[in-house]
Amino acid sequence: MKTKQPTILVVNDDGITAAGIKALMHTMKELGRVVVVAPDSPQSGMGHAITIGKPLRLDKVDIYEGIEMYSCSGTPVDCVKLAVNTVLKGVKPDLCVSGINHGLNNSINVLYSGTMSAAVEGAIERIPSIGFSLDDYTTQANFEHCQKFVKELAVQVLANGLPVGTVLNVNFPAGNNIKGIKICRQANAKWAEEFDERIDPHKRPYYWLTGVFQNDDNGEDTDVWALDHNYASVVPVQFDMTAHHAIPVLNTWTFNV
Amino acid sequence: MKTKQPTILVVNDDGITAAGIKALMHTMKELGRVVVVAPDSPQSGMGHAITIGKPLRLDKVDIYEGIEMYSCSGTPVDCVKLAVNTVLKGVKPDLCVSGINHGLNNSINVLYSGTMSAAVEGAIERIPSIGFSLDDYTTQANFEHCQKFVKELAVQVLANGLPVGTVLNVNFPAGNNIKGIKICRQANAKWAEEFDERIDPHKRPYYWLTGVFQNDDNGEDTDVWALDHNYASVVPVQFDMTAHHAIPVLNTWTFNV
Repeated sequence: MKTKQPTILVVNDDGITAAGIKALMHTMKELGRVVVVAPDSPQSGMGHAITIGKPLRLDKVDIYEGIEMYSCSGTPVDCVKLAVNTVLKGVKPDLCVSGINHGLNNSINVLYSGTMSAAVEGAIERIPSIGFSLDDYTTQANFEHCQKFVKELAVQVLANGLPVGTVLNVNFPAGNNIKGIKICRQANAKWAEEFDERIDPHKRPYYWLTGVFQNDDNGEDTDVWALDHNYASVVPVQFDMTAHHAIPVLNTWTFNV
Repeated sequence: MKTKQPTILVVNDDGITAAGIKALMHTMKELGRVVVVAPDSPQSGMGHAITIGKPLRLDKVDIYEGIEMYSCSGTPVDCVKLAVNTVLKGVKPDLCVSGINHGLNNSINVLYSGTMSAAVEGAIERIPSIGFSLDDYTTQANFEHCQKFVKELAVQVLANGLPVGTVLNVNFPAGNNIKGIKICRQANAKWAEEFDERIDPHKRPYYWLTGVFQNDDNGEDTDVWALDHNYASVVPVQFDMTAHHAIPVLNTWTFNV
């Protein structure tokens, strides 16, 4: 019987002062020893970026009593790498949780999301990992109604582990009436982008990325469907990106080289 | 019969002045109209990052005669989005090619790579897309021996298209004696990282990411195996990251919420 309390690594992409990571670390504190390593500034949309061309800073900070916290100058994925290698000195934590993100990371957003990329990096390091996100993009988002689901999912993953090479992408609808948890697949949706072109005071153009989320997937087994119907969506995500079904197709091609 | 020459979008992550993109755009020039949109500075390791918190710059530049080129302040994925939406005004190119990267992007590197993320973004936009990388990390890398394979793969993809939701990750060994093309799966390998801790002149620590590529996969159908045996590796990559095999496992869990 395992009597030692688990070590739980907490990361995010909204930065170490975000309300979402505060909610997450305090919930995790009920389950074990918490170590937080989070970006010193917002890193939304950083995807799986790592810092190669410049060095990283890592500073121990004292924000919330009784929680070991480090602020990092790098990306969310850098935070996981530094946490495992430098802060924890190569001793893997029992669980890695990322978030709670201010804003959804369902469907195709799994690729752009620093929150999910940090969780994926945890999984690459063979740490059971979960990314959490809420459908509220404001800095004042209220995470209270998610807390019991966050705790339950962490408890289950600590008890059961996760299938090899997978990580959970958990998204919560806003509002108090979440109906339950649905295991889903990633909806086949994308962003229909536009760039807002403006002219700066020096008469030079600049561009703001804007876009509308566009769902082309009518399946009732998707994360988009679950969230639309007020369920928390849980998608098991893998980092083997091979399109295995396409291998036989490509093997029919004849290359003239 | 399609008589109009194809439009080919060329992007990369090493930046618009890199030797690899010069080689790629000149090879593509033999196949159609080339439009280059590339980062104004090196963006290696940027993964699928996008720029949300600040605006982007996009400047038409005149570097190589007869090639339409734009320099962009954003990430490789930003370049694809700006190319499709602003430069090409929503008219999809017939092909998107990314690279040729100075350095391999095989196996797990598909996640960290700006080169591959740009190609994946092309695929999300439903453009047949290919990422190319060479096992030579130097700025002086010689891409000559790759050119006939690059051209042949582009010709095939222009002719056949690609299975829906997939993109090709092509990696070349260094040296002149490439034996041929192998269709592969992504090897189950990872980086064993260490951080090189140093002390700055102000007595504060800083950390450089370093690491050793570690292959735990003995399969002879992987990209690592193909490259080790002097083949160009071609992995079909998908952006549906759902671990479909894990859904029935998770559905056996009972949630007490």
